[in-house]
Amino acid sequence: MKFVSYRSQSSTHLGVLTKDDQILNISSLQDLYKSRISLDVTLPNEMKQFIEQSETALPYVEALLNCYENDHGKNNLASCSISDAEVLAPIAQPEKIICVGLNYIDHCKETNMEPPSSPVIFSKYANAIIGDKAAIELPINSNQVDFEAELTIVIGKEAKCVSEAEAEDYIFGYTIMNDVSARDLQFADSQWSRGKSADTFAPIGPAIVTKDEVGDPHQLDISLTLNEKIMQQSNTSNLIFRIPTIVSFLSQSMTLKPGDLIATGTPPGVGMGRDPQVWLKGGDSLSITIENIGTLSNDVKKHNPNKKQDAKENALLPSK
Amino acid sequence: MKFVSYRSQSSTHLGVLTKDDQILNISSLQDLYKSRISLDVTLPNEMKQFIEQSETALPYVEALLNCYENDHGKNNLASCSISDAEVLAPIAQPEKIICVGLNYIDHCKETNMEPPSSPVIFSKYANAIIGDKAAIELPINSNQVDFEAELTIVIGKEAKCVSEAEAEDYIFGYTIMNDVSARDLQFADSQWSRGKSADTFAPIGPAIVTKDEVGDPHQLDISLTLNEKIMQQSNTSNLIFRIPTIVSFLSQSMTLKPGDLIATGTPPGVGMGRDPQVWLKGGDSLSITIENIGTLSNDVKKHNPNKKQDAKENALLPSK
Repeated sequence: MKFVSYRSQSSTHLGVLTKDDQILNISSLQDLYKSRISLDVTLPNEMKQFIEQSETALPYVEALLNCYENDHGKNNLASCSISDAEVLAPIAQPEKIICVGLNYIDHCKETNMEPPSSPVIFSKYANAIIGDKAAIELPINSNQVDFEAELTIVIGKEAKCVSEAEAEDYIFGYTIMNDVSARDLQFADSQWSRGKSADTFAPIGPAIVTKDEVGDPHQLDISLTLNEKIMQQSNTSNLIFRIPTIVSFLSQSMTLKPGDLIATGTPPGVGMGRDPQVWLKGGDSLSITIENIGTLSNDVKKHNPNKKQDAKENALLPSK
Repeated sequence: MKFVSYRSQSSTHLGVLTKDDQILNISSLQDLYKSRISLDVTLPNEMKQFIEQSETALPYVEALLNCYENDHGKNNLASCSISDAEVLAPIAQPEKIICVGLNYIDHCKETNMEPPSSPVIFSKYANAIIGDKAAIELPINSNQVDFEAELTIVIGKEAKCVSEAEAEDYIFGYTIMNDVSARDLQFADSQWSRGKSADTFAPIGPAIVTKDEVGDPHQLDISLTLNEKIMQQSNTSNLIFRIPTIVSFLSQSMTLKPGDLIATGTPPGVGMGRDPQVWLKGGDSLSITIENIGTLSNDVKKHNPNKKQDAKENALLPSK
């Protein structure tokens, strides 16, 4: 299943995407079929809460969807098609956004970095999160903003000291992240946190796709286009550290929580590795597609120096 | 005022510390005096929400406290003394825990690092947070766990692109953080996130002290003892980058939010800079005192390999 967070009539909802890209509100689904299939609890309409309860909530939604499909169009709950919806970032406030650096061998070469002997871990903060179609805003203090397409793990349940063999049990699904990076800030600091965590620097979505629907996460085509030109194109089979290794590695010292996001690194083709280098500018359009997951699109806009406090408004809303 | 989060009768509360270290529950204070001084809203009993509403909530609590003090002991609302209370981390889930590295000149020398030309920013995650008297647990994958006493800024309202002159307006108050660090993980990774974010690696508290009560934050004695031996002893006058600089600098690219924590760096004396080096071991006792703020005490315990999922329980609870 593909889950989206979206806004309608000024409140936020959780929906399931159908095969023809219509959004079904999961609360409406429950209202319609609860007499046929009952569950003691009301389904949460917030993604992180839903994931926390996914052990019961996920099979329940699956059963509700079966009822809906078996009705052969008798009911139509589709609130809108995803292209018309105000889709939000699927998760607004994960406890952690963990990023793995230098995890494609060719990307190490283009950035003149040695391939690491163990995963390189850095972080973004939730202030950076925006959803599909929201604008990436160039910060006032950077002239070298770059893009990075990344397959992103969504943790499903608490994980501490789990083995590689157990790791998959702790994954809810996958999404897409653009690990937007201000290279001038990133390398000025030695530590990357600041250059990676400007407001709007973590576009995620549009959906979170359950692991069963993604299939083998190490066999997914991944690509990024800038103004419709392909800049990154690879396959997740090229990951240096694979997903069970990353989850197990992190869980040795930190408890991973439901809704935590782990971006697995970016393939070659980023702007800083090109000759001449390519930096994002106002008006650019970025689009990341990962097989079986979807397409995340974000335009780029200049910093607006007259609007100091606009970051909050912008953080979760699409720009249209 | 000094605010604490604490647990009593299995729910969490927000309290004010009196001069004789008694905790007054702020909901009880409001119940007692709301007929004399009314406010349209109920005071939140969760610290982050309280800080978000502090522009109205803070003067209101001040007025309630005045009523209480003017009653000259007629009422006694003190639920307990702080030494008997189950004090929790004052904030459990800040959006950000931002740390400034290498911000005392002598600490740069002892770690063989060049003093930075601009603040070095790295992060911890909220899974690391524990409160006063909770145990720091040595992770299974590190043998070089170290301590760092740090004055910590608590953000009071949203800050984006604020100047140094404006910065103080955006500060709610201060607390203490022990920036516990697994040096082997920190330096194995080039990026410090993993070595800084093991579970229990961010003891904070015991209280958040409002800025008016702290006075000049650049004139505070700061010290750390390990098993009652003084290991760090300095004054915040020795900060390389001062508080308004740090807040303004960060806000140029990221929106700071109410409840965000910014640890300002540690003075000399950490374990890795000593000859021989000193690493934390099970049974150690750490205590950090910062003038006008308080004392944060945490014992150290070994990782318990038979108890995989104990990190969650441990995260917010004292060990006693």
